[in-house]
Amino acid sequence: MRLVTFAAGGGAPVPGALDEAGRVLDLSAVAPDMTALIRGGAEALARARSLVDGAGQGDWLAADAVRLLAPIPRPEKNILCVGKNYHAHAREFQGSGFDKSSGGTDVPELPIIFTKAPTSVIGPGDPVPSGLDPTQTTDYEGELAVVIGTGGRGIAAADAYDHVFGYTIINDVTAREIQRRHAQWFLGKSIDGFCPMGPAIVTKDEVGDVTALRLTTHVNGELRQDARVSDLIFDVPTLIETLSLGMTLEPGDIISTGTAEGVGIGFKPPKYLKPGDVVRIEIDRLGALENPIA
Amino acid sequence: MRLVTFAAGGGAPVPGALDEAGRVLDLSAVAPDMTALIRGGAEALARARSLVDGAGQGDWLAADAVRLLAPIPRPEKNILCVGKNYHAHAREFQGSGFDKSSGGTDVPELPIIFTKAPTSVIGPGDPVPSGLDPTQTTDYEGELAVVIGTGGRGIAAADAYDHVFGYTIINDVTAREIQRRHAQWFLGKSIDGFCPMGPAIVTKDEVGDVTALRLTTHVNGELRQDARVSDLIFDVPTLIETLSLGMTLEPGDIISTGTAEGVGIGFKPPKYLKPGDVVRIEIDRLGALENPIA
Repeated sequence: MRLVTFAAGGGAPVPGALDEAGRVLDLSAVAPDMTALIRGGAEALARARSLVDGAGQGDWLAADAVRLLAPIPRPEKNILCVGKNYHAHAREFQGSGFDKSSGGTDVPELPIIFTKAPTSVIGPGDPVPSGLDPTQTTDYEGELAVVIGTGGRGIAAADAYDHVFGYTIINDVTAREIQRRHAQWFLGKSIDGFCPMGPAIVTKDEVGDVTALRLTTHVNGELRQDARVSDLIFDVPTLIETLSLGMTLEPGDIISTGTAEGVGIGFKPPKYLKPGDVVRIEIDRLGALENPIA
Repeated sequence: MRLVTFAAGGGAPVPGALDEAGRVLDLSAVAPDMTALIRGGAEALARARSLVDGAGQGDWLAADAVRLLAPIPRPEKNILCVGKNYHAHAREFQGSGFDKSSGGTDVPELPIIFTKAPTSVIGPGDPVPSGLDPTQTTDYEGELAVVIGTGGRGIAAADAYDHVFGYTIINDVTAREIQRRHAQWFLGKSIDGFCPMGPAIVTKDEVGDVTALRLTTHVNGELRQDARVSDLIFDVPTLIETLSLGMTLEPGDIISTGTAEGVGIGFKPPKYLKPGDVVRIEIDRLGALENPIA
């Protein structure tokens, strides 16, 4: 299933299912919001499936009658993010001089984990307010994000996929100068609107082998990033094992797995985002997340 | 007022007021939880005061009839934390070799901001599960924490205290080897139980001049940290201005302002915490936060 959070006709946001034509089926009978639906586990998912299977043509809302929000518009904690998790990007970021925290190495020995504030989340199509970055060094990072289903601590890599609910797309928008100046990355990553997410959470059964997925990022139609999830330095099971070693993961937790080569600071001179630009991130089977820069 | 979250007689946690004798008055009529009380603003605070002023002797619950939890047991986002914010500690941490993110400087030019997961929060008296740190390098950091009342973005330092609800104590417990190995500090700071908080949030009117407060940390009765809030490199107004520059602060947000000289890795050899140790952090007017190490 492709699960979304949507609003229709001035109503409050509710969870729904998305079909191939972009139509949406209201799933608020299953749970009041996406995190509650995820927390509902296999039973909630079975109810959602049954509603989808039983829905008549008239039950689906037309694409132009709904507004899609981020699938989890307000995560219950910060988004977990991974830094320098593709070899070529680790080299380009190290070479850019923007990473004060590397200790001089490009490829990390262990996953680098930081967070983005939940207030930074916006939905597909929402403008990224680059004016909130006074350093005018706003950059994109197309990323595969993992949504946790069953929580836990001490999850072994071998069991990690049992804890995955599904996958979505995140643009880990970054104010590069703020990231650099403050050494720890949180502030440069957490500006309001700097976490576009969506359009849907695709459940893991529908994704299949996540390592086979290809990710591309286009800026104004120009291809900037092109990678496969199999290129991750630390793969999804390793990330889940690392994160849950001492910290309990919970249903609805979001892990953005890191970005590939081709971000703006990888160019000389850097290609920062400016108002009017459009960033489009596509991942096989997950759809496309497109946001204009305001 | 001194506000707490407490449980009595097997009931669910609710907000309350704490008096000098350690007795607690139930404030659940004002709001169902502390974050809701804070969000309620001046009106909720006035209602709480009126209940305290009007309470009879029989309304107060004896100290031994209640269990104090962290004043905000489950923050709605990660706890915001400041690194290297006292001169002497910045030097000791830099000298310890545990900061991969410094770029070689001891005193930062701008505040270093990272976060702790909300799942790491525990209350006064709760044991810190040091066994969850496989590197056995668990360390304490006594800190003044600021609780935001009125949220906002772009808050000027001159207006910052208008946005403060009150203050509490945090022990920013850290797994030093995990902090070092992963370069970004989040993971080493976010192990379950590594954020003791409390015992109370003391409202700003009752605290008065926060810069005058003295903070001490004792481990097993031995004085380890002794500082004044006036020694902060980046003071409370500067932190609020910096954090809110591009990111909206919200009611109930917690800013832990950084620790002073005297942490375990400041000693040679380091004095890491071990099961059976007791860490006690005291701050004038805020009380004492004491937790055993398990």
